[in-house]
Order: sequence, then C-alpha cells, then structure tokens
Amino acid sequence: MTGAGTDKTRPLISGGPAIVLVRPQLAVNIGMCARAMANFGLDDLRLVSPREGWPRTDARRKGAYAAAAGAVHLLESAKVYDSVEAAIGDLGFVWATTARERGQGKRVLPPAIAMAETAAAIRSGEKHGIIFGPERTGLDNDDVALADAILTFPVNPAYASLNLAQAVLLTGYEYFRSSQGDVLPFVKPERSPPADRDMVLAFFEFLEGHLETRGFFRPVSKKPIMQRNLRNLFHRMSLSHQDVRTLWGAVVRLVEGPRHTIQTRKRLGPKQTPRKIRDVEPDVTPE
Amino acid sequence: MTGAGTDKTRPLISGGPAIVLVRPQLAVNIGMCARAMANFGLDDLRLVSPREGWPRTDARRKGAYAAAAGAVHLLESAKVYDSVEAAIGDLGFVWATTARERGQGKRVLPPAIAMAETAAAIRSGEKHGIIFGPERTGLDNDDVALADAILTFPVNPAYASLNLAQAVLLTGYEYFRSSQGDVLPFVKPERSPPADRDMVLAFFEFLEGHLETRGFFRPVSKKPIMQRNLRNLFHRMSLSHQDVRTLWGAVVRLVEGPRHTIQTRKRLGPKQTPRKIRDVEPDVTPE
Repeated sequence: MTGAGTDKTRPLISGGPAIVLVRPQLAVNIGMCARAMANFGLDDLRLVSPREGWPRTDARRKGAYAAAAGAVHLLESAKVYDSVEAAIGDLGFVWATTARERGQGKRVLPPAIAMAETAAAIRSGEKHGIIFGPERTGLDNDDVALADAILTFPVNPAYASLNLAQAVLLTGYEYFRSSQGDVLPFVKPERSPPADRDMVLAFFEFLEGHLETRGFFRPVSKKPIMQRNLRNLFHRMSLSHQDVRTLWGAVVRLVEGPRHTIQTRKRLGPKQTPRKIRDVEPDVTPE
Repeated sequence: MTGAGTDKTRPLISGGPAIVLVRPQLAVNIGMCARAMANFGLDDLRLVSPREGWPRTDARRKGAYAAAAGAVHLLESAKVYDSVEAAIGDLGFVWATTARERGQGKRVLPPAIAMAETAAAIRSGEKHGIIFGPERTGLDNDDVALADAILTFPVNPAYASLNLAQAVLLTGYEYFRSSQGDVLPFVKPERSPPADRDMVLAFFEFLEGHLETRGFFRPVSKKPIMQRNLRNLFHRMSLSHQDVRTLWGAVVRLVEGPRHTIQTRKRLGPKQTPRKIRDVEPDVTPE
C-alpha cells in the first residue's frame, strides 16, 4: 500500500525519542528502520557498533540507502557510538526492547502505554530513548540492565519474532499516536454536509406516500413494522444532502416513468446531442 | 529485535479478518505479509492475481517462502482469485486500505478503531476482510468502490508511504490488541512480591534513625523536608520484599563497618576458603 509517498510540501513532523540500534548486523535493516522512523516523525537515529560499519560509502554500498526509501536524511544525520553507555549518555530515560523475560525486575510495558509515557515526558522537555538489539540475538542482559524499563510487543505467543524494522515501526506508530493523536492523512470529504433530520423525514414521507398508494404496506397490520424497517435501512446510510436529493430523484423517476423515451427523442429531431440521448433512463414500470 | 521466534509449544492464536492482497507485484512481499499476519494470529490470506504468479514452485523460487520466515503455513493455505469480487464474495464487511483520499464518501477510520469494530463483529460471528493494493499504485478506485469503508494509517504527512507488509503489520497489530487486549508475551516476574507499606516504613525509620544519630538532618529545621524527599526517592523504586531486605542489609553494613577485615581472616588461619575471602566487603568507614 503506497500511493502517497513523500510530500515535501507538507510539514515534516520531527522530534520524538532517540532510536538506538545496538550492534545492528545488516546495513539494509538500518535503512528500513530509518524509513519506519520517517513514517512517524522520529529523527534521532543512533547506531552502536554497526557490524557492517558506517562510513557513508559502506552503508550506501550495503543497501541501507536504498532500503531507506527517501528517508536518507536520517541516515546522513545518524550518530555512531562505540558503546551503549555512550549512545544513551544524554538521555534521561531509556526503554529496552526485548521479546524475552530477563529477570531484571524492571517494569514491562506494551508500546501503547510506554510511548504515551514517553510522549508526555518529551512534551515536558525530557529526553527519552529506546534501545533495540541485534537482529539475531536481541539485546544482551548487560544492555537491558542499562535501561529504566522494558518495552515489549503484544504478539501471537506462538510466533513472537518481530524483525528490527517492524519493532521500530510499531514503536514509532504508538509514539505518533500518543503525540499527534490518531491524525489521519485525510478524512472523509465533506463535499456534501450530512442531511438534517427534517430533510430525511421529508424523504421518508414522500417515499412512503407513494408506497402506500401502490399497496406496498400489506398486510396493513404490518405497516408500522415495515415502515420502521425501511426507515432504519436508510438511516444506516448516514445520508448527506446530496444523497437525499439523489434518492428523491430516483423515486420520482420510478414513480413517473421514463422522462423521455427514445421515441420522444426521435420526435424532437436531429438537434438532440448523443449525450442527452444517453441521459435517457431505462423504461422502469412502477408496480 | 528477535530472540523469541516461533514457539510451537504455545497455542497458535488464529482467526481474524481475511487479508486480501490485490495484484501484489512481488512474491517476496507476499512472504513478508504472511510473516506479519503470523505475528498477530491472522490466518486467512487471499491473493488476487499476483503478478509473479502463485504456483507454489514459482513463489518459492521468487523468495516468498524465505521472506515468510516460518509463516509458510499461511503461504501454503493462501487462496488465489482472479478478481477482487471473487476474493471478497463470502465476506460481510470489507475495509479498503488507502493512503489517498478517493472522493467516495465512505467512512475513513484509523486501524485502532477499524480493527476494534472488526474484532467485535468477528466475535459475534461476522466475516470481515481488508483489501490491500499493489505495492506501487495502491488500490484503484474500482477496488475501493467494492469496500464498505476506508482504513488509513496515522502517519507523518510529509512521509506517508508505508510498504505493503508494514500496512498489514499495523492492521494485524491493532486487530490483535482489540481481540486479545494488550497481552504481552511476558510480564515483570513476580519473584518477590511488592513490599507492604509496614515493611517500607520500618526501613525508613531504621535508616532515618541512623542518619539522625550521625547528624545527617542539618539544619534541623529542614529535617521534615529532607525526610520527605528521601522517602519519596525510595517510593519511586516500587520496592519488593527482597529489595527492602537488600537495602536494609546495605545500611547495616554501612553503619557497622566491615564484617571481616583481611586481618580478621588472617587470624582465622588457612582453613578459610578463597571464596569466603572474596565475600569480604570493602572497608567502608561510616561518617
């Protein structure tokens, strides 16, 4: 699912917790993490002893830049450290991500709650970070010991393995939700406002009047329930002004029969355009 | 972040909405989607006209099986269709995922709310599905027209492009949260229960008694606030029984000085084991 892509005309949301990748094995995964960070407005990428090295040319050669898919600015500004201690030295609070219990007696929270705490702390000026371990092994216990608390993911226990970029993605997603709310890139267009209840009720009366005349409500004893069912069916549509006008027009046509038949067109002579001919509705015979 | 992996001894959570990949371009992405589905207990994978084909041998050759990383059962059971209409024929409700506004007047919801609706519907026996478009272009408008409502992701508007497997991952994550709760694969171990307040207060009195004797609380007028600050510092630790015993022992040692000095050991003669010598604490002089 793509289709929107990078839109440089829209403000770049930035800030958020530091994402600290500890001894990442593959440069391509660093690129995928950068992409996930950009999706959710995170911009502080820190690398501890990346196994494939991090001179820029190396990273480019190893596919990190391609995997970043436009989030290259994060790779360019990534900071590289020799130790986790150095990488988190300026942070006031650190989460360690792990899929296993570590017996360290730290709080264990899901990303939705952890990132709500972090978003609130960052709003009040604190600096938070999240450390992620190497792809194959995860953080070792000494790394986890450096953290204030543990962040883990609610996953199917029978299949709990998330890859590095997926873990960064879910963390970024929950940080974004907590810091920005569930702000969507677009909403349902308000081309036509919702129909007010008067308009909807007027349509019901119009429709039911015609149905009544034509003997739709039979047996008569069932009329109240038939009427209620029919109305509820339309209520489920959350009708707009335009929707009511469209339905009203459709009922008029059903009731009155063809506006112009092809015969009528023929009588009107050759000046009629083909477009208008196409407007002719099918010959619907009301019951 | 890995480290847990597939655990066949734990129950496989399954069920959930159908994941319908419409005209996916790359087999490897189908594999990554299968992996994301397995993480969150989804097991109904449907493919509409995959571009690289789907005879099993093709898919294997094109990397889908490697990318699925253990979720091969989902690829084996995937159903293949010629049209979106056929793929969703048995479903009662369909979400279309899109990153762009489509002007179709449908409800637009984020995954957290959409999947809460779907989880509730599935609990009451309904069948829901989610359609995802091709990697490069997303769903076309005719595909979106087949859906009841639109699912879109809260992302940084300046960088809104999610890849196919990421979109499936976030959808699966929210379905899992709604259907299972924020159930974590592990929780903080309860090896030692939280200290009850009596125990914590007894420790405070013990500590403060020694500090009082040693003239810590100066000037005396500040004692109440110093005491409160000190107590709050310990309250922030959420002390367990074992924690209080550990701290109590540490204070005893600080107050009483070395349990055994090297001199003492020498007097005890050569029968002392090296291990016990190593237990000797550093010579801490109380103030």
